[in-house]
Amino acid sequence: MAKTIIAKPLTKSSFAPYGQVIEKQGSEERVINNGNCVRHHDLAKIELDGPRAEPSINIFCGQPYEMPLLLKMVERHPLGSQAFVPMHDRPFLVVVCPDDNGKPGTPEAFVTEPGQGINLSKGQWHGVLTPLGQEGDFVVIDRVGDGNNLEEYFFDTPFIVELP
Amino acid sequence: MAKTIIAKPLTKSSFAPYGQVIEKQGSEERVINNGNCVRHHDLAKIELDGPRAEPSINIFCGQPYEMPLLLKMVERHPLGSQAFVPMHDRPFLVVVCPDDNGKPGTPEAFVTEPGQGINLSKGQWHGVLTPLGQEGDFVVIDRVGDGNNLEEYFFDTPFIVELP
Repeated sequence: MAKTIIAKPLTKSSFAPYGQVIEKQGSEERVINNGNCVRHHDLAKIELDGPRAEPSINIFCGQPYEMPLLLKMVERHPLGSQAFVPMHDRPFLVVVCPDDNGKPGTPEAFVTEPGQGINLSKGQWHGVLTPLGQEGDFVVIDRVGDGNNLEEYFFDTPFIVELP
Repeated sequence: MAKTIIAKPLTKSSFAPYGQVIEKQGSEERVINNGNCVRHHDLAKIELDGPRAEPSINIFCGQPYEMPLLLKMVERHPLGSQAFVPMHDRPFLVVVCPDDNGKPGTPEAFVTEPGQGINLSKGQWHGVLTPLGQEGDFVVIDRVGDGNNLEEYFFDTPFIVELP
């Protein structure tokens, strides 16, 4: 029988095992441009391994998913990190799994607040981009290069993910 | 007497001498996630020179400027590119100058449309982040590392920049 996972609010501490929350709160702040701009500095650890690795900037346009979510699979990128920052102020769902001897363990789910993005560490199991309510555009900073940077895992029994 | 620059709509072709427009239109599209997401692929050329150079992800929170803008100075980053993508759907102003023997030439100004960001090439003279109307957050992808990555230039006579 499918196990139900309840999503939690996304916080720096709860997400720390999986990567970084990209948000203004709790950042190193640098005031620039004659006081007219605050630089919230260096919010993510970009990882780029393997042959001909380069960072890239992309826009992902994702369709919304119905909740509760039937989570059939997760994936990971063994050669690089992957950051998602919304180009709008709507929440999205983040699903991650700890690694359990090369396979994904029990998922954890998070709901973002407006102004929050995430960076998934290299090799972090995660669900696909999951906008809520309506289609959404996201800036994605990840790796381009040679080598196989995608691994998928299909669960024997899907999980059900519910909003709080 | 101050010269007036009229801002133009931002397009890939008009901005090509200065860097890249980060937008979905005209991109290489890859359909992923079982058809639920389009990856607009590798939209910017990230440049990272000098000692200990690494890419970084930041959030810039910028105050709005009143228009017409009195443009007193521009700056450039000789060691790396700098990308700005809004985390909202409001336009912002982009000011750039061609290089004229190590000094900025006559400015050009562009107004973005919702969903457009920019990547400034390494060493590109540009005005500071200029939100319009209200405060705005932007994802900024640029370089961290050692070395002096900031050069400022103050015009003898400021320029006036007007919206179209």
